[in-house]
Amino acid sequence: MNNYFSSDFKLGILGGGQLGKMMLYETRKYDIATSVIDPNPEAPAKLAANYFEVGDIQDYETVLKFGRAVDLLTFEIESVNVEALQQLEKEGKKVYPSSQTLLQIQDKAVQKQFYKAEHLPTANFDVFTSKAELTEAILRKEISFPFVWKACKGGYDGKGVSVIKKQEDLISLPEIACIREDLVPFKNELAVIVARNVSGEIKTYPVVEMEFHPTANQVEYVLSPARISAEVAQKARMVAMRVSEAFRHVGLLAVELFQTEDDEILINEVAPRPHNSGHFSIEASYTNQFEQHLRAILNLPLGETKQKLGAVMVNLVGDADYTGNVYYQHIEEIMKMPGVTPHIYGKRETRPFRKMGHVSIIHEDLNEARKVAEHVKTKIKVISKSK
Amino acid sequence: MNNYFSSDFKLGILGGGQLGKMMLYETRKYDIATSVIDPNPEAPAKLAANYFEVGDIQDYETVLKFGRAVDLLTFEIESVNVEALQQLEKEGKKVYPSSQTLLQIQDKAVQKQFYKAEHLPTANFDVFTSKAELTEAILRKEISFPFVWKACKGGYDGKGVSVIKKQEDLISLPEIACIREDLVPFKNELAVIVARNVSGEIKTYPVVEMEFHPTANQVEYVLSPARISAEVAQKARMVAMRVSEAFRHVGLLAVELFQTEDDEILINEVAPRPHNSGHFSIEASYTNQFEQHLRAILNLPLGETKQKLGAVMVNLVGDADYTGNVYYQHIEEIMKMPGVTPHIYGKRETRPFRKMGHVSIIHEDLNEARKVAEHVKTKIKVISKSK
Repeated sequence: MNNYFSSDFKLGILGGGQLGKMMLYETRKYDIATSVIDPNPEAPAKLAANYFEVGDIQDYETVLKFGRAVDLLTFEIESVNVEALQQLEKEGKKVYPSSQTLLQIQDKAVQKQFYKAEHLPTANFDVFTSKAELTEAILRKEISFPFVWKACKGGYDGKGVSVIKKQEDLISLPEIACIREDLVPFKNELAVIVARNVSGEIKTYPVVEMEFHPTANQVEYVLSPARISAEVAQKARMVAMRVSEAFRHVGLLAVELFQTEDDEILINEVAPRPHNSGHFSIEASYTNQFEQHLRAILNLPLGETKQKLGAVMVNLVGDADYTGNVYYQHIEEIMKMPGVTPHIYGKRETRPFRKMGHVSIIHEDLNEARKVAEHVKTKIKVISKSK
Repeated sequence: MNNYFSSDFKLGILGGGQLGKMMLYETRKYDIATSVIDPNPEAPAKLAANYFEVGDIQDYETVLKFGRAVDLLTFEIESVNVEALQQLEKEGKKVYPSSQTLLQIQDKAVQKQFYKAEHLPTANFDVFTSKAELTEAILRKEISFPFVWKACKGGYDGKGVSVIKKQEDLISLPEIACIREDLVPFKNELAVIVARNVSGEIKTYPVVEMEFHPTANQVEYVLSPARISAEVAQKARMVAMRVSEAFRHVGLLAVELFQTEDDEILINEVAPRPHNSGHFSIEASYTNQFEQHLRAILNLPLGETKQKLGAVMVNLVGDADYTGNVYYQHIEEIMKMPGVTPHIYGKRETRPFRKMGHVSIIHEDLNEARKVAEHVKTKIKVISKSK
């Protein structure tokens, strides 16, 4: 049964940011009709959708109405109204990933408890329903510094996570439900993208490595494949697959992992969608992550996940000193470099540290790609002509 | 100066078929705003353009008005109104490829005479302003059988070309201006895509080989790189570059070539745009042909043209026995094969031999890719459920 291609079948996507936008290239490649909804009337995914609507994807009625008008519903962001997804599933609508998976992931306390119940490796943690409860536990010396604080809800792109080293670090924390996690010394932050289709066929992409800036606590490069031993890579892929299976996840699942000092693999957190750590796949993999997500949710055979070449990905974020109409300074310089491809997400306004795009660097030799990536970082600047 | 990305700059594209559609993926990747015009209200490139208009691209006034509203004009098909392009250039509009180049290519007699004047290698030929003139030359024994008949205008996808072996073959020829060309025995049909930007930077893609069906006179596979000697490949690339330079062509130029029995390279014909013989580049090349075309016409640095892997391309054409709403039979079967990517152009109706899409097959070993391509051909069928 294939009635997806050049047919009346309609795929709904909640969220029209850069992930939705890149997913749309693939729906065009296969001529799959799409409806996209996003609160931003100038959302990057506005173009290339057959139908685009402005709406609040956290609103029950909006999501329900939108979902009823499509044949299958997916999302490019976790912060959507889950109750509406549950109702749609009750009405027989296909929703992938499912509301059940999303519920287990949206709240980090639930997510961590799920890992514990499933005997999946993750750092030890405690759950607190409020900041007051957390503070009290500290006063009672049930918790010692340092530890990792994580907001149960709403964390995204490193927001909602803090390392708490001393009493004073607590002051700026918001009054919300949170978890405390052991601060585990680790060698590497890794990630594995797992694809699983409706029938349960499952494939993992090669393990990628997040290389951090030596002083600023920020991911600077994503390298694929990670520069780790074959054993550690195999272990990481196995853990990631077990996570996907445990969630009975359908679609793409990005599993972020820690490689500890003694080469244990711990699950940090997951994202049930295409992910920044998989952008390298557009240029470097046999099947890119966005096409793979579509194959998985449409229950088509999964594509080959191996890589054509080594790859490094660099995010293009707004320069700290500029706000206003974006200008990609020296973009021509990086376009001269062989194997370098910038991706511009289509946001008109730059703001300090706003994700405006990314750059892929491919090379037969990963170390060479890494060197080129450093050149790329020193060359291109995301600024505004009006400072 | 880069004001193309996420800016007010607007690129106009005449024609919204599959080539325009694939070009639009790249304008989205770079967030370059586009206007597209096509006579078909359901043109494949209708989506993903910032602005789409239905109109006759062979009509002077339509093209003039459309062109005036954009910053730079290009086309995905040669049959556009050249007088309007000339007028737009007079008004200071950038048009790439230029009207001058297009004029030299649109009419095959002019094209051939150009090669002769520029001492570029091509088969010997004669020009006739009508069928009567041709018939007369035959009667006067100035021409002997066999020869190749080509319509001066309107040829496309092998239409407008016939091999004339005897008097009777003339009957079905139309009453139009034509050329007669020597029927040159050749080993291979080759093609080279040349990119040349506004500043004159020039790059060629690897030589590709068109493999014909042993009995039906139809291209069955496009293989890249061609299975020819390094010397012949080098010669082919040099000839292609010389053609591009001679035309002072800006954008992509697909140069179709014959490799004769004694390894001479003769120019068959050219197309001043992305081309079927370059589709493999989407999966297999560092820079795909559509991105390269944009880089060239926007005077950005040209991208690397080398290949990541060996590639074979197969066209998906409508089965001879079906007309109606398209159905891609057994597409799941080919999606299971590693390295196989179907591209669906987005035409709702299939017709006998209509180009509905293509399939790319990549592999480290070109011969393996070739074998997979054969499987692909036997599996997938473009049919309609209503016969």
